[in-house]
Amino acid sequence: MSMTSLKRAARKIDWLVRCILLLLTGGCLTLLVTWVWSDNATNYLLRSDAAISKQYISVPDNFQLLVEQSFSCPPCPDVQSIDGLETTGYVDLGVINCSINGAETIECREDKGQVYIPASFINNYFEVYGNVKREGSSRVYNFQHGYGKVYPVQPVYHPGGVFLNFEKYNVETRDKIICVTASHGVPLVSQWDPAGYYYAITVAQYGLSHHAKGILSGNPVPKPVAGGDVTASVWENVESGMSVEIVETSTALGTRKVLAFNAPESVTSPGPVLRLNTIEQTVCMDLQLNSPGGVTMQILTKEGKLGFIHFTLDDAHMVVNGNHVIYGMGQRNLGKWVHLARDVDVDWLKSLGRTKFNAPTCFMEIVDVTLHGTGFLDNVTISTSAHNDHLIHAADWLVISQDSQGGWPTSTGMKTGDNIELKPGWYSAMGQGQAISTLVRAYNLTGQKSYLDTVVAALHLYQLGSHEGGVRARFLDQLDWYEEYPTTPTSTFVLNGFIFAMLGLYDAMKTLDGEGQILAEKLWSSGLHSLKKMLGMYDTGTGTLYDLRHVINHEQPNRARWDYHTTHIALIEEMAIIDGDPIFRSTFNRWVDYFYGKRSKHN
Amino acid sequence: MSMTSLKRAARKIDWLVRCILLLLTGGCLTLLVTWVWSDNATNYLLRSDAAISKQYISVPDNFQLLVEQSFSCPPCPDVQSIDGLETTGYVDLGVINCSINGAETIECREDKGQVYIPASFINNYFEVYGNVKREGSSRVYNFQHGYGKVYPVQPVYHPGGVFLNFEKYNVETRDKIICVTASHGVPLVSQWDPAGYYYAITVAQYGLSHHAKGILSGNPVPKPVAGGDVTASVWENVESGMSVEIVETSTALGTRKVLAFNAPESVTSPGPVLRLNTIEQTVCMDLQLNSPGGVTMQILTKEGKLGFIHFTLDDAHMVVNGNHVIYGMGQRNLGKWVHLARDVDVDWLKSLGRTKFNAPTCFMEIVDVTLHGTGFLDNVTISTSAHNDHLIHAADWLVISQDSQGGWPTSTGMKTGDNIELKPGWYSAMGQGQAISTLVRAYNLTGQKSYLDTVVAALHLYQLGSHEGGVRARFLDQLDWYEEYPTTPTSTFVLNGFIFAMLGLYDAMKTLDGEGQILAEKLWSSGLHSLKKMLGMYDTGTGTLYDLRHVINHEQPNRARWDYHTTHIALIEEMAIIDGDPIFRSTFNRWVDYFYGKRSKHN
Repeated sequence: MSMTSLKRAARKIDWLVRCILLLLTGGCLTLLVTWVWSDNATNYLLRSDAAISKQYISVPDNFQLLVEQSFSCPPCPDVQSIDGLETTGYVDLGVINCSINGAETIECREDKGQVYIPASFINNYFEVYGNVKREGSSRVYNFQHGYGKVYPVQPVYHPGGVFLNFEKYNVETRDKIICVTASHGVPLVSQWDPAGYYYAITVAQYGLSHHAKGILSGNPVPKPVAGGDVTASVWENVESGMSVEIVETSTALGTRKVLAFNAPESVTSPGPVLRLNTIEQTVCMDLQLNSPGGVTMQILTKEGKLGFIHFTLDDAHMVVNGNHVIYGMGQRNLGKWVHLARDVDVDWLKSLGRTKFNAPTCFMEIVDVTLHGTGFLDNVTISTSAHNDHLIHAADWLVISQDSQGGWPTSTGMKTGDNIELKPGWYSAMGQGQAISTLVRAYNLTGQKSYLDTVVAALHLYQLGSHEGGVRARFLDQLDWYEEYPTTPTSTFVLNGFIFAMLGLYDAMKTLDGEGQILAEKLWSSGLHSLKKMLGMYDTGTGTLYDLRHVINHEQPNRARWDYHTTHIALIEEMAIIDGDPIFRSTFNRWVDYFYGKRSKHN
Repeated sequence: MSMTSLKRAARKIDWLVRCILLLLTGGCLTLLVTWVWSDNATNYLLRSDAAISKQYISVPDNFQLLVEQSFSCPPCPDVQSIDGLETTGYVDLGVINCSINGAETIECREDKGQVYIPASFINNYFEVYGNVKREGSSRVYNFQHGYGKVYPVQPVYHPGGVFLNFEKYNVETRDKIICVTASHGVPLVSQWDPAGYYYAITVAQYGLSHHAKGILSGNPVPKPVAGGDVTASVWENVESGMSVEIVETSTALGTRKVLAFNAPESVTSPGPVLRLNTIEQTVCMDLQLNSPGGVTMQILTKEGKLGFIHFTLDDAHMVVNGNHVIYGMGQRNLGKWVHLARDVDVDWLKSLGRTKFNAPTCFMEIVDVTLHGTGFLDNVTISTSAHNDHLIHAADWLVISQDSQGGWPTSTGMKTGDNIELKPGWYSAMGQGQAISTLVRAYNLTGQKSYLDTVVAALHLYQLGSHEGGVRARFLDQLDWYEEYPTTPTSTFVLNGFIFAMLGLYDAMKTLDGEGQILAEKLWSSGLHSLKKMLGMYDTGTGTLYDLRHVINHEQPNRARWDYHTTHIALIEEMAIIDGDPIFRSTFNRWVDYFYGKRSKHN
C-alpha cells in the first residue's frame, strides 16, 4: 500500500467519524456507516443506515472537538463523492424487494439470511397495530394484535350488582354526547340528529355505568354545605334588595325547612354568594325557582381562567357564550322542585365542545355558587361523585319516557341494507334490556315499586315480532332472537344487542314476581335456547361477527371490530357466569385467544 | 494524526476488505461492514450486517489476490479484538426489540424510522407463506397469502362435460395411492389401511380427472401396433416350442380374429417379442390368459436403466422385486378377456414407491413387449394417454361394486369427535355424488344403459337419514344436507362434500328420465334450498370453514386450509354457473379475494 493510499484511507476514516458524530449530536439516533473503496477503474460507495440507542455509545471527551469541526461535513446520506473521486452509485445494504401475492412490490430488508417486512405494511395488511415506545432507556416496538382491552366482569352476577364491566364505560364524555341535561340529568345524544335527542340505550348505560362505578369505587358521602338544616349566615354579598332566609315549606313528604332566596333575576347580576373553593367537582342540590333566575357556579380552570355555569329555566339544553354556559331546566319546572346532581367538570368540558378531559382547559376548582331570582334551595352538598343520583336520574327518565307499548321508540328511521330498514318509531330489544337492567337497579337501591311497573311493561315488546312493530325475530322461523335492530323484511341478528336484551330479561326474572316473573323467565329460556343453537355462527376461528347479515342476506360477513369483539367477550363471560353451560366458558376462552392472535385450528 | 494511527487505520481497511471479499466468495451474499475506532480510554466496535445482491458489486480485478489471502481472516461476525486492542462490546446496528402482544419479544430491525419484522415470525403468526426466489439477475422475496392456486372451472357445465376443474387433479400420483391395479384398472388407496383398498371417491375422481383431461387435452387416436387385424410377422424371438398366429375366436359380440400365442410360462423366460421403442407411454390391449404367464413390458429409464413390468394372473395387486414389478390381474381372470390400459410411466413410478414424477428414475421409453404362457391378444395400441379407458374402468368398478343399498360402503369406522362417529360400513354422500357424476359421463360416452341403472340405485341413500344408515342430515330438523361424513349422534355439515353430492344429483337429474329423474330433481331442489340458507355460515370474512362442528357441537371452528378453500371456490363457481343465483357469484368473488388476503369489511 502506497503512502498516498494510506493517507486517503485515513482521511476517509476521519470523515466517517465526523459524520457519525454529527448524527449523534442533537439527540439524533440514526447512525450512518459508510464504506468507500476504489480501484483505478471504478469507485464504490456502500451504505448502511440503522438506528441505535445512544445508550450503546459513551461518546468520549476528546470527540467533542471533532463534533464542532464536523459541521462542515456534507449531509451524510447524500454524499456521492469524496476527495474529488466520483462514485458510480450506492446501494442500501440489505434491501430486498418483496412481491406481495404477485400483485405489488414493497421494499423489505434482509439481514443474516432473514427477510424483514416493514411493520407499516404488516399493520395495514393484517389489521394489526404497532408503535415504538420507550421502555426505560431503550426503545421497543409494541406489536398489538387487537386494540382496546379485555376487561373482566365480576365473578358473580346479580340484578343489584355491577352490570357487566360497565365501570369502564364513560358515557357522558363520549363524542356523540352533547351534554348531560339539567332538565332530566341524563345525556343528550347527537348521533343521528345534531340538535340532540334522548336515546334510551345511552340513558340506561349512563345510569348503569355510574351504578357500577358507585359499587366498585364507592359512593362518597356528600358533605352538606348549605341548605334548610344549616344557618343562612354562610351566604355573602346579600346586598340591598336581596334576601336569604330559612323558611318552612310544605312538600309532598310534609313540611320542611329550606332556604328561601330573593335576588335580581339576571344570571350575570350580583346575588347571594356561597363560597365553596373546593376541588371536589360534584355539586348536588334541590332547587325550586319561582321566577326567572337560577344558580350560577363559578369555576376556576387549571390554566387560571374563570368559567360560569348557570342553571336556569331555559328550554334550551345548553347555550354557550364565551366562558358562560347556560344549562336549561325548562320552563315547565317553574315553581317545581328539581334535583340537580352535577359533575361540574363534565358540564364545563361539554360547554367547550370537548369530549375528553384535557388538562389546560380542565376544571380545577368550584369557586362559589350565586343565586338569582326568587326561589327555594335545599340539600346543597359537594362530593367527588354522585353515581347513585345519576342512576336514579336515568331510571326516572326511563319511567316517564316509556310509551304505551312499554318501549322507548327511536324517531329516526334507518336503512341498513338494500330494502332492509327500520321505520321511524322503531324499538330496540337492546334498549328494552338495558332499560330493565337500569330500572331493576334503581328499584334495588330505593325499593320504589314504580320502577318495577315500568319493567313489566317493558317485557311486552319482546313478544311482538319485528313485522308487528316489536323486537322479536325468528331464525329459520324457529329460534327467537331479540333484535337490537328489528329490521324488516329480513332480520339482522346482532349478537351483542341480543345478549344485552337477555341480561335485562334475567334481571327482570330475578326481581319481579307474579305474571311478570313468569313472562320474563319464558322469554329468557327461549332466548337462551336460541343463543346456544346459534352462538357458533358468530365465531370465525379468528374473531367474531357482529351479526348474521351474511347468512340472512348473503352480504359480506360483518366482522366485529376489536371493541365489539371485547364486548362480545365480556357478554359471553357474563353468560358463562349466569348460566354455567360450559359452552359459554369455552367460547369465552377461545374469543380471548383470538384477541391475542391465537386462532382456531384448520383442518 | 500520527504515522502509527495511519498505519493502524490502513490495516483495518485491509482487514475489512478481506472480510467482505471472503463473504462474497462462494456465492455468499451477506456483507459485513464493521467499523472500529478508539481513543486512549476505550475501544469501540460497531457492526452492521446486511445482505446485498452480488449484482451490485463488480469485484475489481486487483481484489482477486486479496480473496486468496483472506482465508486466514478470523470469522468476521465473532471478531471482538483487532491488533491486540480489546473491544468493550459491539452493537448490531438497526436492531430493535419487538414485543408481541406483551407476551414475547423478538428481534426486529429498524431503518430510517421504519420497523421491519422478521418474515419467519410473520409466516408463522399469520399463517402465510414466503420464500426468496431468483428473478433474472436479482432476488425477490415472494410473499403469498395462501398456498395452492385458484383454478377456474369451465364456463358452461353439463353432465357430459368437464367435471369442475378436475383436469388439474392427478389422482394416481398422490401419496396415498399404492398403484392403479391391473385387475380393475382403478387406483388402490392406502390412507386408512396400508394393505390397500378401493375407495369409491378416489375411483370416481380418477375417472373424472381423466375424463376432464381427455376433453381439454384431447384423446389421442391410439396407434395399433399388433393384434388380430394385423400380421403376426412383427413378433420376433419366436423360438422353438413357441408360436404366434392369427386365429378366429368367438366372443359375446361374435367371431373375431385375434393373436394366439404359446410360450414358456415364466415371465422371466424368453418369449415372442414385439419391439416398440416408443416414448409414448400408454399401452392398451385386450388379453386372455389360458395358462399362467402374462405380458412383460421392458422399459428404459432416463438414467439408462432397464425395468420390467409384468402383467400376470397373480392375486397380489403389485409385487416389486428389484427392477421387476408384477401387476396381478387375479386368478379369476384365467380364461377371460381383460382390457389393460396402462400408463406405463405411472406403473413404473408406483413400483418405485414414488409419488411424484422425478427425472432421474423416470420412464423414458417402452422398449418392447414379451408374451408368456398361452393365450390370446388383441387391439394392442400405443398412445400418449388413454383417458377414456380410465373413465370406463372407474365406471365399471362402480357398477360391480355397488351394494344392495345402492352405495359404496367404507369398512373403516371413524371417530370425528367426542362420541361422534361413523360406524364401519358407512356411506358418504360425496361418494354417491362423485360415483353418479362418473357413471353419467361413462353413459354419455358409451350410451350403455347399465350405467344409468347404477345411478338410479345410488339415489336411494340420499333419502335416508344418517341415523338410518343413510347420508341425509337435517339442519335444525329442517334443512336437508347430504353428508360427506354422516356422523351420529350429531351431524357435521361438511361443505365441499355436500356440493359434490349436489353435482351428482344435478348430473342425474339432467340425464335420467322417469322416476329416477323426478327423485333426483326433488333431492337437488331440497339441497339447493339448504345451501342458499346455510352458505353464509361457512364464510368467516377472511376465509371459509370446512364444516359446522362449531355450531352443532360448540367445538372450535374448523377453518378450511387453503387447498380446501380453493376447492370451495371452484365448487361455488360451479354452482353459480349451474344455478345462476347471484349469491353464488358474489360469494365466489369474495372467496377469491380472501385467497389473496382481502377481507370483508368490519363494522
